[in-house]
Amino acid sequence: MLARYMLDQSLSKDVLHGRPATMWRYQEQLPLLDNDHMVSLGEGMTPLLTLNRLAARHGLATVTLKDEGQNPTGSFKARGLSMAISKAKELGVEGCIIPTAGNAGVAMAAYCAKAGMAATVVMPRHTPQAFKEECYWYGADVHLIDGLINDCAAHVRQLNANGQWLDVSTLKEPYRIEGKKTMGYEIAEQMNWQLPDVILYPAGGGTGLIGIWKAFREMQEMGWLAPDVKLPRMVAVQAANCCPLIETLAGRQPNSQNYNGRPTIANGLAVPRPLGEALMLKVLEESNGTAVSITDDEMVEGMRELSRLEGLFVAPEGGAIWMAARQLLKTGWLRENEHMLLLNTGSGQKYMANVEGRY
Amino acid sequence: MLARYMLDQSLSKDVLHGRPATMWRYQEQLPLLDNDHMVSLGEGMTPLLTLNRLAARHGLATVTLKDEGQNPTGSFKARGLSMAISKAKELGVEGCIIPTAGNAGVAMAAYCAKAGMAATVVMPRHTPQAFKEECYWYGADVHLIDGLINDCAAHVRQLNANGQWLDVSTLKEPYRIEGKKTMGYEIAEQMNWQLPDVILYPAGGGTGLIGIWKAFREMQEMGWLAPDVKLPRMVAVQAANCCPLIETLAGRQPNSQNYNGRPTIANGLAVPRPLGEALMLKVLEESNGTAVSITDDEMVEGMRELSRLEGLFVAPEGGAIWMAARQLLKTGWLRENEHMLLLNTGSGQKYMANVEGRY
Repeated sequence: MLARYMLDQSLSKDVLHGRPATMWRYQEQLPLLDNDHMVSLGEGMTPLLTLNRLAARHGLATVTLKDEGQNPTGSFKARGLSMAISKAKELGVEGCIIPTAGNAGVAMAAYCAKAGMAATVVMPRHTPQAFKEECYWYGADVHLIDGLINDCAAHVRQLNANGQWLDVSTLKEPYRIEGKKTMGYEIAEQMNWQLPDVILYPAGGGTGLIGIWKAFREMQEMGWLAPDVKLPRMVAVQAANCCPLIETLAGRQPNSQNYNGRPTIANGLAVPRPLGEALMLKVLEESNGTAVSITDDEMVEGMRELSRLEGLFVAPEGGAIWMAARQLLKTGWLRENEHMLLLNTGSGQKYMANVEGRY
Repeated sequence: MLARYMLDQSLSKDVLHGRPATMWRYQEQLPLLDNDHMVSLGEGMTPLLTLNRLAARHGLATVTLKDEGQNPTGSFKARGLSMAISKAKELGVEGCIIPTAGNAGVAMAAYCAKAGMAATVVMPRHTPQAFKEECYWYGADVHLIDGLINDCAAHVRQLNANGQWLDVSTLKEPYRIEGKKTMGYEIAEQMNWQLPDVILYPAGGGTGLIGIWKAFREMQEMGWLAPDVKLPRMVAVQAANCCPLIETLAGRQPNSQNYNGRPTIANGLAVPRPLGEALMLKVLEESNGTAVSITDDEMVEGMRELSRLEGLFVAPEGGAIWMAARQLLKTGWLRENEHMLLLNTGSGQKYMANVEGRY
């Protein structure tokens, strides 16, 4: 289910002037009916940074990075969960349940705490301790599962067989993606309603990738993007240990329904059977994009460059997108003079145990 | 040294409209001459959150919290160091050195990396590993010292005897406080140019407390605050293990120059001999404020309430300010119907080792 709005050109983007610097500035394009139900910790309007030293070292014209690590709970997951828990509050829900690779669970636990709702989080046992501990602080009920996020999803179905809690699994409800799409609105607003040539995005469940593209289409429909503004080519970046999209694109499988992935230090990329696979592939096709996979060792190399040259301690997912740019520059798919935007989904803080001593 | 500006009423606060949501929106009140020297990771314009569930449980009218944990590197220290390293770049400095309880060192390492400067960080050996590791990622040279921040300061003087690096110790240079004062500007702007009745602030070195007050005075001078806007009473919150201000205020010492503190889980409050003591005491006096000390166990209790009720995993310093409010409510110094603003200086993430399992 995807939300559709009655969009027309009567809503001017001037409404944004003077609104708070959070994702809720785009309230006309979000499905909450009454602002009193908003559950907000200040998510969104994260900075779009220019990476001059990195660009100079690699002979590139323009590299920017949107730093989602500055969201509440340290990742882009705050957007989707702020939206979903707000809507759950509006609908009178008393508790939510989620399977997660880490960040989404922490975010759900935080927003449920703020809303006064019960929270049940199901995550792989091998997830770094920092993710679990933060959920405990928020008072969530945490279940640890041997396996990856699809095994957690099976456990969620079992735990919630009676439908007691709202299941906010990726793309099983229509609200999280609405929060995530605000990244697309912000990129346009922060670039003064222009867009980059290419966006590199770490795609696990893929809601962000799909959401950003949805935002671009909505802005075209409303006339917020001028007709001559070209939409970017979208790049889905996956982990070599778990790259279902790559396998499907290469024709080695019809789809990912039987794909088996392995754990990776980029916990958020260990999603072997994403429900949104078809939607992601459609975005890649429509945008003339592509998909790339990156090894765990390469991710660490990317993290090192971003921290040493740009003062950004990003998650391994963030290291991956920069290494994907380097790979695509090598093959010529990406050109030195193109504006490439790296979407870093989270801070490296909670991943410290995965990369200890590898600086 | 404190920076003074030629302020007059010709600069309208309308200049702020449409400026980026960072502390650099107040550029006319910051000492950088050329924006090309700006070293920014998107610091500032952190959210001002309303804590409804906490207020309801304690029968209070309005409790707000400014969440500085959403800054780059996870703390308010980003502001001061963004300013200081930008100015250092403008002045042609090649490297900086700092004694730190943790957060300031991480921030300096990040901004120096972004600026391409050498960074030397001197911190207590007992500081949680997460602070050290993040400095290593940024490529800083880290020295570990047995003792507290004043012992680190002594080591900095030794290391830097030849004046090779710019020493950015708290209040030894005039720039960090200029970055910190932007918290005061933001509080006013976010409250639509009104102010709370009381601000509770965790005071270690105290630059933030002094800086916020400086901002209020500047805004009065420029006419950005209407003449009938009353300045808040300022509360300096310290750790029971290290509370030099309390001891001086109680007349048990003439000043803190010989005070000995002990470590606390709020690493940032372990500042036994703050250089800014006299300036802090002046702010407390001018504002009809006070100082309060909080035990480590109480801080954990405060962290628990903020995380469970409001979805905020704050540093122990943040737990302390909420417990200070509770203490002052009990004595009657603070009244239930007053608007109290809690200034949370950082995220709990890097302090995890200090509070493990105590949720």
